[in-house]
Amino acid sequence: MVQYPTTVDRAFAALADPTRRAVLERLGGGSATVSELAAPFGMSLTGMKKHIRLLEEANLVTTEKVGRTRSCTLAPYAFEGISIWLQRLDRFAHVVQRTKGAR
Amino acid sequence: MVQYPTTVDRAFAALADPTRRAVLERLGGGSATVSELAAPFGMSLTGMKKHIRLLEEANLVTTEKVGRTRSCTLAPYAFEGISIWLQRLDRFAHVVQRTKGAR
Repeated sequence: MVQYPTTVDRAFAALADPTRRAVLERLGGGSATVSELAAPFGMSLTGMKKHIRLLEEANLVTTEKVGRTRSCTLAPYAFEGISIWLQRLDRFAHVVQRTKGAR
Repeated sequence: MVQYPTTVDRAFAALADPTRRAVLERLGGGSATVSELAAPFGMSLTGMKKHIRLLEEANLVTTEKVGRTRSCTLAPYAFEGISIWLQRLDRFAHVVQRTKGAR
């Protein structure tokens, strides 16, 4: 079974990193520049840009050049695809537990 | 900011792999042995056991020794922690979009 990377693959891979999840939580409070995102982690701009690029490729964040800075924002419907997948698995998990209980 | 791995970290890391997600979907249909899980991927038992161990460490799967085989089952409430986290981010994403729209 050959597997090709999908948006769901990239989203989970992006979310597997605690720094990237913290960036998403920060962006939950509103848009921020790359410098604003890097500061609390004591991280270089280069390091933060790498995280942002992975979040962009996973369709979780959008960025926009504003003058000399780059503004980052949570993507619309960022978590919809993976939420749907997880909800389906969650239903499976409940069915499996019910079936075990009924034995 | 020092980050320690949490169950949420481990769950997303486990879900970032398409083989592990396919295993979870298969287990959504009911418990299976490691051999049954390995077969459709043409994967060695050793390779599949490694995936299963990561899923176990992430609290997504439980395993039980039954005679000479090991039976794998979706863990109860496997997806609850990460679902809650994602729903919170999803609400943030909607607020951010509304705020942008109101400008």
